[in-house]
Amino acid sequence: MKNQRIQERIEKLRRKMEAENIRFYIVPTADYHNSEYVDDYFKVREFFSGFTGSNGTLVVSAEEAGLWTDGRYFIQAEKELEGTGITLFRMQEEGVPEIWQYLEEKTQESDLVAFDGRVVDTAFGKKLEKKLEAKGVKLYYEDDPAAGLWTDRPGLPAHPVTVLPDALCGVTTEEKLAAVREKMCREGCSYLLLSKLDDLMWLLNIRGSDVECNPVALSYGLITMDEMFYFIGGRAVTPQFRTYAQDRGIILKEYADIIPFLKTFSYEGRVLADEKNISYLLYKTVSERAEILNQSSPTEWMKAVKNPVELDRMREIYLKDSVVVTKFIYWLKQNVGRMELTEVSAADYLDGLRAQTEGFLDLSFPTISAYKENAAMMHYEAMEGSCKKLAPEGMLLVDSGGQYLGGTTDVTRTIVLGAVSQEIKKHYSAVAAGMLQLSQAKFLYGCTGRNLDILARKPLWDMGIDYKCGTGHGVGYILNVHEGPQGIRWRFAPGSSEAVLEAGMDVTNEPGVYIEGSHGIRIENVMVVRNGVKNGDGQFMEFETLTFVPIDREALDKDSLRTEDIERINAYHKQVYDKISAFLTEEERTWLGEATAAL
Amino acid sequence: MKNQRIQERIEKLRRKMEAENIRFYIVPTADYHNSEYVDDYFKVREFFSGFTGSNGTLVVSAEEAGLWTDGRYFIQAEKELEGTGITLFRMQEEGVPEIWQYLEEKTQESDLVAFDGRVVDTAFGKKLEKKLEAKGVKLYYEDDPAAGLWTDRPGLPAHPVTVLPDALCGVTTEEKLAAVREKMCREGCSYLLLSKLDDLMWLLNIRGSDVECNPVALSYGLITMDEMFYFIGGRAVTPQFRTYAQDRGIILKEYADIIPFLKTFSYEGRVLADEKNISYLLYKTVSERAEILNQSSPTEWMKAVKNPVELDRMREIYLKDSVVVTKFIYWLKQNVGRMELTEVSAADYLDGLRAQTEGFLDLSFPTISAYKENAAMMHYEAMEGSCKKLAPEGMLLVDSGGQYLGGTTDVTRTIVLGAVSQEIKKHYSAVAAGMLQLSQAKFLYGCTGRNLDILARKPLWDMGIDYKCGTGHGVGYILNVHEGPQGIRWRFAPGSSEAVLEAGMDVTNEPGVYIEGSHGIRIENVMVVRNGVKNGDGQFMEFETLTFVPIDREALDKDSLRTEDIERINAYHKQVYDKISAFLTEEERTWLGEATAAL
Repeated sequence: MKNQRIQERIEKLRRKMEAENIRFYIVPTADYHNSEYVDDYFKVREFFSGFTGSNGTLVVSAEEAGLWTDGRYFIQAEKELEGTGITLFRMQEEGVPEIWQYLEEKTQESDLVAFDGRVVDTAFGKKLEKKLEAKGVKLYYEDDPAAGLWTDRPGLPAHPVTVLPDALCGVTTEEKLAAVREKMCREGCSYLLLSKLDDLMWLLNIRGSDVECNPVALSYGLITMDEMFYFIGGRAVTPQFRTYAQDRGIILKEYADIIPFLKTFSYEGRVLADEKNISYLLYKTVSERAEILNQSSPTEWMKAVKNPVELDRMREIYLKDSVVVTKFIYWLKQNVGRMELTEVSAADYLDGLRAQTEGFLDLSFPTISAYKENAAMMHYEAMEGSCKKLAPEGMLLVDSGGQYLGGTTDVTRTIVLGAVSQEIKKHYSAVAAGMLQLSQAKFLYGCTGRNLDILARKPLWDMGIDYKCGTGHGVGYILNVHEGPQGIRWRFAPGSSEAVLEAGMDVTNEPGVYIEGSHGIRIENVMVVRNGVKNGDGQFMEFETLTFVPIDREALDKDSLRTEDIERINAYHKQVYDKISAFLTEEERTWLGEATAAL
Repeated sequence: MKNQRIQERIEKLRRKMEAENIRFYIVPTADYHNSEYVDDYFKVREFFSGFTGSNGTLVVSAEEAGLWTDGRYFIQAEKELEGTGITLFRMQEEGVPEIWQYLEEKTQESDLVAFDGRVVDTAFGKKLEKKLEAKGVKLYYEDDPAAGLWTDRPGLPAHPVTVLPDALCGVTTEEKLAAVREKMCREGCSYLLLSKLDDLMWLLNIRGSDVECNPVALSYGLITMDEMFYFIGGRAVTPQFRTYAQDRGIILKEYADIIPFLKTFSYEGRVLADEKNISYLLYKTVSERAEILNQSSPTEWMKAVKNPVELDRMREIYLKDSVVVTKFIYWLKQNVGRMELTEVSAADYLDGLRAQTEGFLDLSFPTISAYKENAAMMHYEAMEGSCKKLAPEGMLLVDSGGQYLGGTTDVTRTIVLGAVSQEIKKHYSAVAAGMLQLSQAKFLYGCTGRNLDILARKPLWDMGIDYKCGTGHGVGYILNVHEGPQGIRWRFAPGSSEAVLEAGMDVTNEPGVYIEGSHGIRIENVMVVRNGVKNGDGQFMEFETLTFVPIDREALDKDSLRTEDIERINAYHKQVYDKISAFLTEEERTWLGEATAAL
């Protein structure tokens, strides 16, 4: 089946490319800030390819169009690219070239390779420089060559920002700026260039709403030892924020002026900038005028270690959010087969429950509601009309979270709606066992996620099954649901940095099984690293679990669980009952008693 | 109690330092090749400090003398440094400065810091350059400022080398040289500078005996695209080796001529050299004349991946060696309390059994025989006269191995001689459980030892106990018992490289418990990485165990073991009985039947 709309768009693009003598056009999925989620304004790749996943890069030439995406999206991309003439490149699979390798092979001397330098990250831009400029290929990056082809493109957002009360933040902007400047000084830098939006929000104790589910405002910051220049759309600046900024020596500038400003600024010293988080155009603009110290911004690490005030708010919010999800599970099990339900209507019900919760601001990401084999697509998005109807059989995977004044949540449960196969039970039990084995880990200070990942994955690896993604990521505080530098992953990338798990860092724990065409299982809790015993052997660390939602007993296969797994499930379920039963109705509580009974 | 001898030596050194205006004198523990074991000629640090451990660095100034060593040696160093006036610096413990930090703090402008540049590794030399030269401190490194103070110093060894038959090597020197040159070419290098002795032996399919327990010859190599210059003591060159070398385009040079040669050589292109494995003096000599590509030598990785011929020989040799150790355990249990036995005499008996084994060449390291609390010292060396007598109580830790024509072995068992406490049983059981949990790991291709280490350590970490060393290291093939790049360790060092575990790599698996003043437990098997199932989720890897020696049932506490641990112990013991019982006497076989009976 031909996808006329996409083929026409690509045709239009190719004509434009021909007119401008562009041999290859690259469209990654990014805004100007390397945010994971992007506002509609930036959905150029989706516009030209039809692929809606959150990660993917389109490369178009006269002869071929290819889309690169990762394992989470292989199944979804295959579906969405059908009939577009676009080839799917499955990243990290054997024999699949990386984009630079593909371009290195396909380009010839004096070819022009074009991309919008504002939406391309520095590493990728530099890689292209190194690999392509060496063979005489030219790069075009100062603006977007395809600008104008998308005629009904939405406008660039600039919603008013909110200043958070100190009681929610624990640390003031003045204190954060002082700590950042201390670090700049220690590194011998006179400036810190910040383009990462959640870092800017964290630093200024403000929140915005320019990106779906991310409470951030499009902006840039240049911090000097005495001042801070803050580039933000004029419409976003409320009188409250203007005063707040003035009182703290923060000079407000128009968002669009960042590049002209950096081109005319008098640099007196090195600029600390994390090349991972500044666009290639920012990198080129600054590096041609000053020395860059390429290093993680101190804000990244500081933001990741939640302070005691933040942790207290998070404990409260996670409890409320756990109650919401537990109520949802009860409602779903009660009503499936009794009323018309779909993936979307179930998600809507859950979203509605969250929206009624005190302090609710927004979802932290679009709720994933995936029934049966749809759940094998890790980031499947159900669509009204095309989505599956729910029946009293199989399982529904629901991955969801909220933005609250008090924290950002992220939780997944895969819920039994009726009969499930023995294979599914075996997989579900292994996922639950792995998740709880990681939750209960004791480890010496100095461990990173790479040391611990195998605890979650082991029951699956023992069966020859893997999930093609990390086990866990950091979670923001009233900020992005995906946050670094902490994480639980196993893969080794030479030279890459790893974050030692520090007390106060929060991290998700979400192993899964994804069997294409059959079923998908994921169970996800959020945990906080805390100090355990300290003795002559060192400081031991452990996790505190924040999420208290039952694991589905109907999908647990007692025979395939080890004694210690059963003990862990029973202990977790006792906690779930103790913590949330008080917030349920009588009926819900009775059900929860059964749902958390010892195996 | 004053250690007169050491204090006098340090006094002599201080007078010499004063005469030469040297403010700090640094003596690491290394030969000219960064070998782990060193010939007596190189034991300068031991000469001046009295500390006999295999790792340690002495730093002497007019006011202070300090010895830095790692966790394996804290207990031993404390004992040996008593009365010397030398302060022990416990590396990696909280608040203990690294040597460069110590020097950075203590030195002042125009101070002279001296060391023998041939025995200092490049990284350390460069670190000192960066940290000290910046503040105007001068480095002295072209020779050893303390040469001459050690009047009865032994001579530099140069024993005749042996050429190995092809049937033992699997791959010829010509093939190895071709593969190395292919890699040099791919990296854009015209030369490979090799100083690592086991890499040189592996490459040339020869063995030497210049270092105790290491079948290596002191030598250097410079490989060009057509030739190889091989620097070795004239006395080491047999007529057989001279012909062998000539036939392969290998030009023999005198060992001592390496520095003059490198100073006058006409470099036409880059030199590949692993700065980890060349001395600071080699580094300075070459880097002042040519560009160095600092990278692991291709020989390191090639040597680590054992070929099928080597693996077959190793399986045979490990079986023979396992029989030796099992016979030893039986003999020990039979005779303790019935005859006079000491740590040393027990080790001698074991060494004697090994020496009678077909193909035996040497021990692969001095046998560690440590009774009761002595076993808490990880690398304790029992001395005739001062060592402990064995009695029918407690445990004896024996870590030993042999060099055979067919492989290098390394095995540890901690053997019950009589009554042991419940605490010891609990610790022993946890060590056995961790060792076998790691042995049975299934993991995706791409994992390194850092992903797996926690499997061995988990039962101990769960109790708040750690062992202050890695879990495993590579083992050479008729070569050094410690070999890289593979290993099983958990600690993260930013920027350090990790070796993906490749099929054919061998690695030890040796968790332990070390309780100062009480007891020490270590159980060590050697394993080889091999391919497991391959499916859509990737290539799974697993380990093949080479060591088949019983784990002491008398120290296993069934109640503290999980069902799966018990199953693993029983399965391993069945293998042990099946593989080695045929090589035992009737009496030994009967005992082994009981020693390996299912728990």
